[in-house]
Amino acid sequence: MKAGVLGSGMVGQAISARLAELGHDVMIGTRDPNKLNEWHSAHQDIKIGSFAGAAAHGEIIFNATNGAGSLEALRMAGESNLNGKVLVDISEPLDFSNGMPPSLFVSNTDSLGEQIQRAFPNVRVVKTLNTITANVMVYPQRIANGDHQVFISGNDAGAKAQVVDILKSFGWLHILDLGDLTTARATEMYIAIWLRLWGAVGTGMFNIKIMK
Amino acid sequence: MKAGVLGSGMVGQAISARLAELGHDVMIGTRDPNKLNEWHSAHQDIKIGSFAGAAAHGEIIFNATNGAGSLEALRMAGESNLNGKVLVDISEPLDFSNGMPPSLFVSNTDSLGEQIQRAFPNVRVVKTLNTITANVMVYPQRIANGDHQVFISGNDAGAKAQVVDILKSFGWLHILDLGDLTTARATEMYIAIWLRLWGAVGTGMFNIKIMK
Repeated sequence: MKAGVLGSGMVGQAISARLAELGHDVMIGTRDPNKLNEWHSAHQDIKIGSFAGAAAHGEIIFNATNGAGSLEALRMAGESNLNGKVLVDISEPLDFSNGMPPSLFVSNTDSLGEQIQRAFPNVRVVKTLNTITANVMVYPQRIANGDHQVFISGNDAGAKAQVVDILKSFGWLHILDLGDLTTARATEMYIAIWLRLWGAVGTGMFNIKIMK
Repeated sequence: MKAGVLGSGMVGQAISARLAELGHDVMIGTRDPNKLNEWHSAHQDIKIGSFAGAAAHGEIIFNATNGAGSLEALRMAGESNLNGKVLVDISEPLDFSNGMPPSLFVSNTDSLGEQIQRAFPNVRVVKTLNTITANVMVYPQRIANGDHQVFISGNDAGAKAQVVDILKSFGWLHILDLGDLTTARATEMYIAIWLRLWGAVGTGMFNIKIMK
């Protein structure tokens, strides 16, 4: 599979490296290729390009840009490079302008996932992986042998099925479909308690399991 | 212990019945005593009164009113009946005006718990139990033998310690102190994913466990 990963922070690096490890042909898109020099020396099988280059390369696209810059990054990626493709949206609408912990710049009656879907109506947006830290996203079995949940939200059943397969290949055992993309409001708002749990638990290497 | 429970819905009934079962002297406060006639016949050891009556009765107060009416209910309870006491705030800022599922009328950079604390600065507000359904609040061991978390938020360490003891008496095994009352934003925003999980899981009888 040819994958384009937008964003070169911790999440973009983790997703790119894991996809490459699984044998996929990955291009990571960044505004600043120089910042990836050291990382690239350890990941020479991964191509480095612009946002537009990575979006053109990928049959499937991962949005791992920071939330405040996601819509601009996707515009730079180019609608024509995105249309018809599955966009795995991992971004969080974090707003650091009110101090720490961050608040959300969109929430409650809308979400960043929905904003992206409205801005790019012919892209098949699937929100997922936005409820755990980067390392857990791609190696879920490093925590409790994978006995915890990841969530997916999206309007396109076929796109969600494709994303479920990718999540399974990462090692996810419990993938819970919450419904259409309005349910991204819920997983994005969950970041508020995730940040507090991070503080209370003392590590980002955790996730939640649903107990019945 | 003398407890005053404000609110006669499912949560107020569950909290009152459980406290009485544990031997406490409980008065439930309501705007409409008649609505409790049938329930009261099965719980004759529980006194029924007004919000002010229940607040005056209690050494500790539980706010189990619906969120949209909580500030008004507490004003009716009377500041002088509340001052200096621990107020266990279980309310949720649910806004049904945008349809289902409900959104929140305060969130992100403020919370209902904080609004209550600001309105009643001499009350010792502890937010807790607002992340599970009423039955799980008071009988946590009915799910997975109690192997899941409840959260507490508040500015007063002594008040939180008192509430921890009550939660333990209900059967809670894992009580996680998230910090000061600003952390109530996180647990109140969690209701968004709780509502979606309710839909996806098919029952309200669930909770989350933190897996590390």
